[in-house]
Amino acid sequence: MTETIQKIVSAIRQSNTILITSHEGPDGDAIGSSLGLAAFLTAIGKRVTVHLADPVPELYRFLPGADAICSNIPDQDFELAFVLDVGEFRRAGKQFGSFTRISHTINLDHHLTCENFGAINLIDEKAAATAVLVWRIAKSYGFRADYDTATCLYVGVLTDTGSFRYSNSNREAFQVAGELVEQGGLNAWSIAEKLYESQPRKRLELLAQSLPTLEFVKDGRVASITVSLDMYSTTGASAELTDGFINYPRSVAGVEVAILFRQIDKARYKIGFRSKGLVNVATLAQAFGGGGHHNAAGGMVDGSLDEVKRIVYGAVEAVQW
Amino acid sequence: MTETIQKIVSAIRQSNTILITSHEGPDGDAIGSSLGLAAFLTAIGKRVTVHLADPVPELYRFLPGADAICSNIPDQDFELAFVLDVGEFRRAGKQFGSFTRISHTINLDHHLTCENFGAINLIDEKAAATAVLVWRIAKSYGFRADYDTATCLYVGVLTDTGSFRYSNSNREAFQVAGELVEQGGLNAWSIAEKLYESQPRKRLELLAQSLPTLEFVKDGRVASITVSLDMYSTTGASAELTDGFINYPRSVAGVEVAILFRQIDKARYKIGFRSKGLVNVATLAQAFGGGGHHNAAGGMVDGSLDEVKRIVYGAVEAVQW
Repeated sequence: MTETIQKIVSAIRQSNTILITSHEGPDGDAIGSSLGLAAFLTAIGKRVTVHLADPVPELYRFLPGADAICSNIPDQDFELAFVLDVGEFRRAGKQFGSFTRISHTINLDHHLTCENFGAINLIDEKAAATAVLVWRIAKSYGFRADYDTATCLYVGVLTDTGSFRYSNSNREAFQVAGELVEQGGLNAWSIAEKLYESQPRKRLELLAQSLPTLEFVKDGRVASITVSLDMYSTTGASAELTDGFINYPRSVAGVEVAILFRQIDKARYKIGFRSKGLVNVATLAQAFGGGGHHNAAGGMVDGSLDEVKRIVYGAVEAVQW
Repeated sequence: MTETIQKIVSAIRQSNTILITSHEGPDGDAIGSSLGLAAFLTAIGKRVTVHLADPVPELYRFLPGADAICSNIPDQDFELAFVLDVGEFRRAGKQFGSFTRISHTINLDHHLTCENFGAINLIDEKAAATAVLVWRIAKSYGFRADYDTATCLYVGVLTDTGSFRYSNSNREAFQVAGELVEQGGLNAWSIAEKLYESQPRKRLELLAQSLPTLEFVKDGRVASITVSLDMYSTTGASAELTDGFINYPRSVAGVEVAILFRQIDKARYKIGFRSKGLVNVATLAQAFGGGGHHNAAGGMVDGSLDEVKRIVYGAVEAVQW
């Protein structure tokens, strides 16, 4: 590990033009680790370009450097490219996949399944976030975090650990957060306020309509809520604002499986599943043409809401646990 | 500071029977720091009694040692008493206030206004939680956290920092959390699940009824929700379950002041106020016979809901910011 980091530090020292990219549909760690690495490299005098195939969600646009992210890679040579948080190379996007004007590629990731596609690969599935790996490199370089670097890397750690609630919140995750807060002079609340206390009004209005559809089945061990097309039209909210809604039924004591029914057409529903651990919802989702992970999965079912509920509840009832 | 801690470590070495107490209406840090200190002292061979004037809320009953907390102080001599997280001595409760069979009292607190009522006072308002002070002492003693000690102290830090979101989430808070997670072999998720993912079903049902009352005034800079007596009776939820409801209107972008109208009688409402920082809601609350802090305050208004809203919105509209 230390040897790999030394190789990366050497590569940084020998390069001047550096390209950084991450995965499609970027999340807090993809954006935070990319921008944090960019802030560090810029601070030590490198010419840095950050490319992301997809736009930065509104939530993360406050991050220093977010405005300079380019959706098209400039047609120039780069001595070095960093690919961050990308388990499968193709997820870096088409444009990067076919871009050849790079001398060396370094791959930083914390996914167990990461492909070793770089000239140097720093893969550590014990790292809570890719931002943690970036911080290991910056520290090895002897860098003391400035405000911009610290803010971006902190957001990477904060979001990938679910505000330090997920089981990946290990010693190093806390250690890194503490160092970033101190060195960067960060105020944890002013960052948390932007991420967790600034939801669009329409989102809360949509939640206010959806939450009364709360339903419990299987002796309270399964709970669901529903979002209908009607709710979108009366609130003016878009479907992406339902992100996180499924956490409400999941948050109830005794609930093991939470379900979100999201209407996407007159007689068609997207089904989201969350498990607290006992039930493998990926298997459940497969029955509905979908998939996912043990604790988070999704599928699709055609029918009226009543029909869809009957089918999905039936499948959940059949699971033994 | 170091000298004070050395004095405390000496006092611990010289004592065998130790009483620990904290404030009335105990929260996560009061309970977590008390039980964490008790676990540490028990592990090093002391005879420890934890006394709290009020019952431990359901939420915290999973903490190791919570069952052994006594509401009545046993009639015996104690060589040492620790008073934790108690800004004003009277908040330790009547029974402790009049209890005299203690040789020495040590006062651990992180409130700016703490009275120096102990023979030794370790007061540090920069500490994120009283649990942080307990950990400083245990470390100075040379103690490596076991599971029980780590769990209790971690919960103290976690709850007093609002899951590491408040501005008191400083370097030491993260450092302590990291050490506790590692030494105690904690799974951050299994603790977070108990605190944040196990709300009573009735609470979410009450929220589902309350959230549709969401209202915005003053160009969306003020938002309110209401809980009526009707909602309690249809859901069977008690008033204490509304704890945290006010965070929903507060969490909307652009909202500076959030209000919770809680009906407590046919024509009487408790008013809760939260500010994101610009407005001092303590001043607002004073107009309604209440008070509080800059960012969190409350009062009481008589009248029908319409009347109460007119009065309260009028007062908020009048504030310049």
